[in-house]
Amino acid sequence: MIPRNCWYVAAMAHELLPGALFPRTLLDTPVLLFRRQDGSAAAIEDRCSHRRVALHLGRLVGDHVQCGYHGLEFDGSGACVRIPNQERIPPKACVRAFALVERDGFLWIWMGDQALADAALVPDYAEICSDPAYVGRRSDAMHVAAPYTYNLENVLDLSHVSYVHRQTVGTPLVAETRPETTVRGDTVVVRRAWERIDAPPVFRRLFGWDQVKRTQTIHFWPGANIRLDITSEPVGNTDPALVRRIRVVGPCTPQTQGSHFKFSTMYRDFAQQDAAITEQLADAFAVTLNEDKVLMEDQWRNACTDGPDAPMFDIAVDQAPLATRRILARLAQAEAH
Amino acid sequence: MIPRNCWYVAAMAHELLPGALFPRTLLDTPVLLFRRQDGSAAAIEDRCSHRRVALHLGRLVGDHVQCGYHGLEFDGSGACVRIPNQERIPPKACVRAFALVERDGFLWIWMGDQALADAALVPDYAEICSDPAYVGRRSDAMHVAAPYTYNLENVLDLSHVSYVHRQTVGTPLVAETRPETTVRGDTVVVRRAWERIDAPPVFRRLFGWDQVKRTQTIHFWPGANIRLDITSEPVGNTDPALVRRIRVVGPCTPQTQGSHFKFSTMYRDFAQQDAAITEQLADAFAVTLNEDKVLMEDQWRNACTDGPDAPMFDIAVDQAPLATRRILARLAQAEAH
Amino acid sequence: MIPRNCWYVAAMAHELLPGALFPRTLLDTPVLLFRRQDGSAAAIEDRCSHRRVALHLGRLVGDHVQCGYHGLEFDGSGACVRIPNQERIPPKACVRAFALVERDGFLWIWMGDQALADAALVPDYAEICSDPAYVGRRSDAMHVAAPYTYNLENVLDLSHVSYVHRQTVGTPLVAETRPETTVRGDTVVVRRAWERIDAPPVFRRLFGWDQVKRTQTIHFWPGANIRLDITSEPVGNTDPALVRRIRVVGPCTPQTQGSHFKFSTMYRDFAQQDAAITEQLADAFAVTLNEDKVLMEDQWRNACTDGPDAPMFDIAVDQAPLATRRILARLAQAEAH
Repeated sequence: MIPRNCWYVAAMAHELLPGALFPRTLLDTPVLLFRRQDGSAAAIEDRCSHRRVALHLGRLVGDHVQCGYHGLEFDGSGACVRIPNQERIPPKACVRAFALVERDGFLWIWMGDQALADAALVPDYAEICSDPAYVGRRSDAMHVAAPYTYNLENVLDLSHVSYVHRQTVGTPLVAETRPETTVRGDTVVVRRAWERIDAPPVFRRLFGWDQVKRTQTIHFWPGANIRLDITSEPVGNTDPALVRRIRVVGPCTPQTQGSHFKFSTMYRDFAQQDAAITEQLADAFAVTLNEDKVLMEDQWRNACTDGPDAPMFDIAVDQAPLATRRILARLAQAEAH
Repeated sequence: MIPRNCWYVAAMAHELLPGALFPRTLLDTPVLLFRRQDGSAAAIEDRCSHRRVALHLGRLVGDHVQCGYHGLEFDGSGACVRIPNQERIPPKACVRAFALVERDGFLWIWMGDQALADAALVPDYAEICSDPAYVGRRSDAMHVAAPYTYNLENVLDLSHVSYVHRQTVGTPLVAETRPETTVRGDTVVVRRAWERIDAPPVFRRLFGWDQVKRTQTIHFWPGANIRLDITSEPVGNTDPALVRRIRVVGPCTPQTQGSHFKFSTMYRDFAQQDAAITEQLADAFAVTLNEDKVLMEDQWRNACTDGPDAPMFDIAVDQAPLATRRILARLAQAEAH
Repeated sequence: MIPRNCWYVAAMAHELLPGALFPRTLLDTPVLLFRRQDGSAAAIEDRCSHRRVALHLGRLVGDHVQCGYHGLEFDGSGACVRIPNQERIPPKACVRAFALVERDGFLWIWMGDQALADAALVPDYAEICSDPAYVGRRSDAMHVAAPYTYNLENVLDLSHVSYVHRQTVGTPLVAETRPETTVRGDTVVVRRAWERIDAPPVFRRLFGWDQVKRTQTIHFWPGANIRLDITSEPVGNTDPALVRRIRVVGPCTPQTQGSHFKFSTMYRDFAQQDAAITEQLADAFAVTLNEDKVLMEDQWRNACTDGPDAPMFDIAVDQAPLATRRILARLAQAEAH
């Protein structure tokens, strides 16, 4: 059901501290992340090959993970390099390892066929995450007890901000504005634009703009990548230099069939030195992420309780979510063959 | 297994405050209760027809329930009256609605075939609950993690008060006195009478009665109605004016196959102005309800653990409980055909 | 899967206080332990024969257990001796009873065929537990959410102390020393010996020994008996009077297929009057028991999550654990025929 042959975020790079054994279940598989002494990150299965005790209960000895039960040791390639009191190490003593690439502040993992893991395919967020023009407070992983597709559908249909985020960032305007949806290959783009709307408080304060011209564009591409670009500029403006950008980088990763991790950070290309604004925007953004979490988890709890035959129906704004589902189903099916 | 074509208590009327979205699962169905602006109560399924998010996470907009996710709106008849950014509202956008009658301080709901919902069949507790001669502190719903039939059987066999309520209201006398059980159609009546027994403290204090003549009569009728009438009078009395009555109104409602809500209030027709006695009796009564809850929940936990084939056997006082089971099985079977 | 025709520890004798109704699930069966007025202990099923309410919710009336719901009474043989308001007591009113023997500070129970319960087969720990030469602080039961076989395997392969107890009692030495394993009939003995190793602090302090000659011998025999004998003496010693002994008595009992109780006490034959050392050793020992518990429970959680087909492999030190598994499988199979 979930495509495995693509790169997912295993963790934010800053979550994995040197010396730590960091366990996280990804795509129904227990994974152990750790850094070698040179700082490079590795990912192996979080199970000792001997009795399947979690390796994160052991300790890091140099570049090796030592099982906390009987002392077997493994390196970052999954090879078993030591069995106490025993010379021969059989091949089945090895554990699975997963390709891992650290880039743009993310640790990208390939959970599928390791022969297909190609670092050139790692999703590219460099233009935001590795460009000093953009600042933002990088989030930790947020756990959501709902399928990762619920999150994709949540973000691809921003009409929900008028209701879910009614008391925070939402206005009735978004739900009232029909978006333009473009599906091209495996990507989905949803766009709304307004020539003149009320400006959010932060723009009034910083730039004296009471009203703005605004666009809101959401990009999806597989595995589970989300980018949201918001432009704001004075009404009627034609000078590109006056455009201010807020960009949300929001990939997510399935934990199990019914849960996921969400890695969502809001960046901006203005007032970059103003640390207070960074904190204020990040705090407000975290509140909205929690509002989404409540609804996604309720939706999933109900799906589990009510069963797969409980009736549902689609509405106009479901165009992008439905397109995304079809793309993911196609990819999963292709892997199954 | 559970008859659906009868009226059950959805909630005490005082539990449903104006402006509130009140969720409660009844007969395995998630129900949302709310009041329209004119105060009338309505019950619809607590699931948005779109993605099955619980409607109680939304808000009340006038007489409409607005889904908290994408803003669909529903009225008290279950009709979908608005889909944001979309003109056509398809028939499948509606949600189920349930007949609801407010009477005697209860909100009565009909969960079965709505065409059969007849307000004339609403159980009648008016002679107690709507008669100013009777006073009592109305309870809220009590949740019990055991089938509702356990509660019916508990109340219909009051021999348990000698053991369960040994440290509160029970005396060995009840268990020692064989009751007279009468089954007539779908009703069961269990009666015990004593010409001379020790009076409870409250009667000594109020009336100076050390001993009393007493009767105790329990009535059951479907769906899950219970009324307990206790009369006390001086030994040898023949004057009806000297009879004092305590009456427990105790309908219950299945939540799921393995849990129920209990709506039990104790009324009396004496010392009606004495608010201290009202509180004291209600507090003591609440303790006994909790004592029953502990045993019913243990019984159900064991039934789940031990399985349906674990041995049990019946004793003499099970006559009324067994009759009740047969009545309910007959009603459920009739509905299945 | 679990042999039932053998004696297991139901409880430490000191856990069962006079007047108490003590419930404990053993071999998937709810058991109620209590003492008669003469102090003798009895074990019956913890379910009333009437509606299967747990009898431990009732009370002890003389030598009888009175059900807390409807007042049925049972004696220590499981016989129903009273049904309120009913003269005839049918045979099916009885509950199961289990042979129980109090010896060496343990309450031994026979959960299998009662006709085979032979007190002569009760495991014999008298030479330690009933000999005043040995002192130790008797433990209570420790609950472990893992199969009892995990505990047997844990203790029979002490190489784990070098890792699990690395920060408490472990040294790399144990894992580095290959043990000698002897399987004879249904018993397994594992032995390690060192002519000269560093002495633990307690020996330095008490006897001034910096190094010791040491042996470590673990005995297993069915049902689930474990004895660990550790001898320490001066290097090169030949005088038996100078040998100091630490002996761990550690039977365990299955609670369910996936959990057990562990009854582990450490005894010693030196400094018997020194209560401070008793407390200090017992406290340190309790820490190691908890370290084992963490790993066994992780192992079991993973087994449940990953399923029976998840790969594992055996290493050299698994010789004794594997022999134990074979013995228990043989006994269980013999019972099934």
